[in-house]
Amino acid sequence: MSKMIIDRLFKEVQEKGPVCIGLDTSVSYLSPSMQKISRLSEKIFTFNKEVIDASFDICAVYKLQIAYYEALGIEGLKAYAQTLEYLRNRNILTIADVKRGDIKDTAKMYAKAHFEGEFESDFITISPYMGFDSIEPYLKYLSDNEKGLFVLLRTSNEGAKDIEYKETDGKRIYDIVGEELLRLGKSFMGECSYSSLGAVVGDNRLDIGEADDIRKRYENIFFLIPGYGAQGGNAKSVMSLLKDMNGGVVNSSRGIIKYPQKFEDWDDKFQYYIRESVVKMREDFGLGKSV
Amino acid sequence: MSKMIIDRLFKEVQEKGPVCIGLDTSVSYLSPSMQKISRLSEKIFTFNKEVIDASFDICAVYKLQIAYYEALGIEGLKAYAQTLEYLRNRNILTIADVKRGDIKDTAKMYAKAHFEGEFESDFITISPYMGFDSIEPYLKYLSDNEKGLFVLLRTSNEGAKDIEYKETDGKRIYDIVGEELLRLGKSFMGECSYSSLGAVVGDNRLDIGEADDIRKRYENIFFLIPGYGAQGGNAKSVMSLLKDMNGGVVNSSRGIIKYPQKFEDWDDKFQYYIRESVVKMREDFGLGKSV
Repeated sequence: MSKMIIDRLFKEVQEKGPVCIGLDTSVSYLSPSMQKISRLSEKIFTFNKEVIDASFDICAVYKLQIAYYEALGIEGLKAYAQTLEYLRNRNILTIADVKRGDIKDTAKMYAKAHFEGEFESDFITISPYMGFDSIEPYLKYLSDNEKGLFVLLRTSNEGAKDIEYKETDGKRIYDIVGEELLRLGKSFMGECSYSSLGAVVGDNRLDIGEADDIRKRYENIFFLIPGYGAQGGNAKSVMSLLKDMNGGVVNSSRGIIKYPQKFEDWDDKFQYYIRESVVKMREDFGLGKSV
Repeated sequence: MSKMIIDRLFKEVQEKGPVCIGLDTSVSYLSPSMQKISRLSEKIFTFNKEVIDASFDICAVYKLQIAYYEALGIEGLKAYAQTLEYLRNRNILTIADVKRGDIKDTAKMYAKAHFEGEFESDFITISPYMGFDSIEPYLKYLSDNEKGLFVLLRTSNEGAKDIEYKETDGKRIYDIVGEELLRLGKSFMGECSYSSLGAVVGDNRLDIGEADDIRKRYENIFFLIPGYGAQGGNAKSVMSLLKDMNGGVVNSSRGIIKYPQKFEDWDDKFQYYIRESVVKMREDFGLGKSV
């Protein structure tokens, strides 16, 4: 039987808690001493490295939002590749938040781009708008290369209502996506009882009832949960999307990586403040300081 | 009044016909002498340059499918940037087929990535699954920076039925997207009577009636039409999506860029065969050899 990446992620959450740190790194987040580094890719990578070094033992996985790196051109993407390499070499799990979605032949290229080579990561996010044949080319990586997917289901933005919540034959569009994920996901089940085919389920703007319902209906689907912190989500609805503090990871990006800026001595104590913000987030979920 | 990019595209189509060449460049498409170039980015760029040099006077716009470049890592993206620069310096219009789609803050980064800097292009494609607030950050570029968008409406793949064709309150999901584009598009109308906010409407698997209907319903929306040629679309349904041989561009990727491979002497006559394939496509639409 092939090994499933989801078992590794499940174990990380078991040991370190469900925090996912979003490395949505912008030049304006860099501390004064990082700003002095001349090469752009090196600057960005240094920031990411410091965040990682300060938190890897209390964080399950790191998510890189590729848009922030694309916005910086080739140098940005060098920092992106370098950060993934740094994490890979330390056996730390990564999610590439790329939200790609395209026809089969193109999807094959995206799978190659983000599951192999310089931009290799453990999980990637994809968008289902173009239908289920656009998901298929990624699936062989789940069984053959120990990789995982998070497909957009119900996102954390206001606009979720425009398409995801539309009803057709008594079902929401997001449930049509969810049911297909349940069906497809059966082929990629880990021993932890979750599938390596996961889903993105936003935290904010969900009421507790709906969060409970989603968790129940998609029992075997592991969730990537954005929207906590800066985007307005809260611990209570997050708890409903988890099961025994597992079954999902909760992403915080700006809430963590912009936190040090609040303090006068942040240039000296950057790693200290990063860690403090992660500890606060863990406490918000009722997890202790020590791990 | 601000200048609208759609007027430039309309004029190009008027003068050169509706062919859009898709530079979905794969290493396996390179001619033997291109294969000898040692640096990967240079190899890919040389291929693209030869395609462009052979066709720019009979082709309205070039579309770069970024997945093919991402799959080659940093070197691939260097070739991507170099190709866009080559086209930009010659005043030739470009579409970056990136199909991004994300929350506002991230969409801002994608807009910066693909409307500015090294990866700057004239038009980009985006995906509406996350709703209409995910489109908004791109819009200021339409009025302020003479840029354009093609939003996924009804795509050319089998999976289009899974979400795009689902009905809600008697409307298809793709029509919900289309109606929003009509509404938003009014603010970006060119003198040509089309909007700089365009849509992707696939050619194959559309019957003529539906193509006619889409063209009529979305009168002022300019279409990017994939699916012709290698993907199985045909000239007849394409004609229904156009209006007086304008109002849309018809993309062909592999149909053109893999065409030279069919001939023994393709290494010597690469540009000749590229041009021949474009001329054949034009003839298929009833356009003459000379322009």
